[in-house]
Amino acid sequence: MKQSKLFTKISKEISKEETSKNAQLLIRAGFIDKLMSGVYSYLPLGLMVFKKIENIIREEMNNISGQEVLLPALLPKENWEKTGRWKYPEMLKLQNRAGKDFSLGWTHEEIITPLVKKFVKSYKDLPIYVYQFQNKFRDELRAKSGLLRGIEFSMKDLYSFHKNQEDLDEYYEKVKAAYFKIFKRCGLEKVTFLTLASGGAFAKYSHEFQTETLSGEDEIYFCKKCDLAINKEIIEEEKHICPECGGKDLEIKKSIEVGNIFKLGKRFSEPFDFMFRDKDGKENPIIMGCYGIGLGRLMGTIVEIYNDEKGIIWPKEVSPFSVHLIAIESSEKVKNAAEKLYKNLQEEKIEVLYDDREDKTAGEKFAECDLIGIPTRIVVSERTLEKDCVEVKKRSEKESKLVKINEVSSSL
Amino acid sequence: MKQSKLFTKISKEISKEETSKNAQLLIRAGFIDKLMSGVYSYLPLGLMVFKKIENIIREEMNNISGQEVLLPALLPKENWEKTGRWKYPEMLKLQNRAGKDFSLGWTHEEIITPLVKKFVKSYKDLPIYVYQFQNKFRDELRAKSGLLRGIEFSMKDLYSFHKNQEDLDEYYEKVKAAYFKIFKRCGLEKVTFLTLASGGAFAKYSHEFQTETLSGEDEIYFCKKCDLAINKEIIEEEKHICPECGGKDLEIKKSIEVGNIFKLGKRFSEPFDFMFRDKDGKENPIIMGCYGIGLGRLMGTIVEIYNDEKGIIWPKEVSPFSVHLIAIESSEKVKNAAEKLYKNLQEEKIEVLYDDREDKTAGEKFAECDLIGIPTRIVVSERTLEKDCVEVKKRSEKESKLVKINEVSSSL
Repeated sequence: MKQSKLFTKISKEISKEETSKNAQLLIRAGFIDKLMSGVYSYLPLGLMVFKKIENIIREEMNNISGQEVLLPALLPKENWEKTGRWKYPEMLKLQNRAGKDFSLGWTHEEIITPLVKKFVKSYKDLPIYVYQFQNKFRDELRAKSGLLRGIEFSMKDLYSFHKNQEDLDEYYEKVKAAYFKIFKRCGLEKVTFLTLASGGAFAKYSHEFQTETLSGEDEIYFCKKCDLAINKEIIEEEKHICPECGGKDLEIKKSIEVGNIFKLGKRFSEPFDFMFRDKDGKENPIIMGCYGIGLGRLMGTIVEIYNDEKGIIWPKEVSPFSVHLIAIESSEKVKNAAEKLYKNLQEEKIEVLYDDREDKTAGEKFAECDLIGIPTRIVVSERTLEKDCVEVKKRSEKESKLVKINEVSSSL
Repeated sequence: MKQSKLFTKISKEISKEETSKNAQLLIRAGFIDKLMSGVYSYLPLGLMVFKKIENIIREEMNNISGQEVLLPALLPKENWEKTGRWKYPEMLKLQNRAGKDFSLGWTHEEIITPLVKKFVKSYKDLPIYVYQFQNKFRDELRAKSGLLRGIEFSMKDLYSFHKNQEDLDEYYEKVKAAYFKIFKRCGLEKVTFLTLASGGAFAKYSHEFQTETLSGEDEIYFCKKCDLAINKEIIEEEKHICPECGGKDLEIKKSIEVGNIFKLGKRFSEPFDFMFRDKDGKENPIIMGCYGIGLGRLMGTIVEIYNDEKGIIWPKEVSPFSVHLIAIESSEKVKNAAEKLYKNLQEEKIEVLYDDREDKTAGEKFAECDLIGIPTRIVVSERTLEKDCVEVKKRSEKESKLVKINEVSSSL
């Protein structure tokens, strides 16, 4: 894409209301725009990152046999009354002109359970794994963390339906592995920890995926003896003793919850009377699991981790483009060489943002390039062309190198 | 995809509340599920069609330089008050716990206008074309037409920003052409007509794209003299006389509005004080256009047009799969041949739904295949294998033919 065509522009000021690093950087670089507290628009560059994250998650969900659906955001009161969750204080509620009550979905167990029930009669129909990407809504009173805590936010939610506990346990482990793959592909592998969390009535523990960062709103406790990560709620219940080994030497770290997985058991199948016939013809309740990842939160977390004083440093797989090609000085020679390289790279299926603007200085272009944070910068100038070269620099490194212009794509 | 893995199943009953053909067929075949009146879930097959339509629209929007964004669904009252549209009766409204007023977006002029304003100062920044796919909400009291009229529904909305009327007029024609391409790719070319509609304060007329079908809720009038299509509102204003040629011989047809394009002029730039500096340094108001297509409505319209007594007949580009491969009789020989063909077709990037189910009769499989409506059916059986063949039948044709098994993919 030619940068001269991009309708967004870099902003020099940082809005005073935005105290979070992720919102400051993403707004300044033109990835997102704030409509109001906790509600953001995704602009072209931001939507590209969002779609990359979505596709990574989709691939890993499909790899564990997930089937994608799209459930509504507007949900009827009756479904929530069945499970006693109509009273949930953070649910946004509304009425239509005829006085019918609705809520905006903040989770979809109440919808997916009766839906899947329509297609299941026997153990032969199980297991079933269904996921979606959908906007969720939560009446969040303290939405001050940019993309980390939204009133409107996109979630991937996966629901699994099983004939028994063993089958759920087995799939739960598969989802765990898929989640680690997702966080690895998003560049968060080394800083993301499987963390014990409260499990509700059915399982002793559920699990959160917590990403360590100083700006996190959560706290995780690491047991120095058995290396377990435990969330704050559990550690307080257990009176600051590791529930696994009894160790008391705990290290506290700030973190962001980037995912959670939960054994629901019969919590939702019972109120919806969702049963199946087993091999012996006996009716049994369905056993369920649910598994969530917030897409905007994940994007915000990546920015919280990957930035420096100059801007964002996108991990490769989620970057809006692979290469930021910059032409400096607008002589015909430079322009032609840059245009040609731009076309060649595109033909090689390399995604390029091409800074073809003529009204910006080299300094401005470099500063904006660092702020946007595409992994590889390629500069074409009179000086580099004298040696038939371009200058190649990784965003994450300080040094640049000269590369022969006809060897650029193979060097990437 | 193996049909044995698909969690949805064909339903034999038609729900009595569903009076529309599109909802009846799509629900029976497992494409969608009704949550409540006007609110549907997209199931795996339905979401595949939905995504194909979305991608066709995306490609054609990108071809006319559209830049994709994603605006929120939850919108603040203040923006609507600026344009006097907070009183719109079909807008769903809600309050959070702090008493702040929101609406659910049914259109996004009030959001995109101040957003784009942030990036535009001079004529050099224009024109700008921005589009999104987003859920819209409308407090629809008579939502009885399946996907044709929803309370929650997905829209593609494109907004264009221009320095003058001529520039808008030129782009408006480009969008017209892009819309015809979209409807053509969706199989609706011959039955979709550009129709004169009411233009509001700024332009004399806007345009609707109306698809002729007996089940349509709209009416269009064709002037037999000049072949113009005119919507009901205009024709009543004009007292049943063609506004173009004065002709009085009009033919009435039932239709569905599948798209609309509208010259907004200064209707939204003025309330948001959205100005730009022209070449002479003078401040002028921005001239805008907007252009909508409802994705679910388009999907429902396709089904209304393309069906017979046996089920749906998907046009090629929007079908969930290209081929429905059916193995009948579950001998090892048939199974192995079908499996092999399934793999070969997938390697050739042909999308296949493979009916590998062993608990269904040939008759049941054929009936379900006709209901689902994939363009090409391929049957593997003992009988066809005797001649090293498979039986190939188009959903839209009555006759089948035998094709050598190693010539199948080239014949498609």
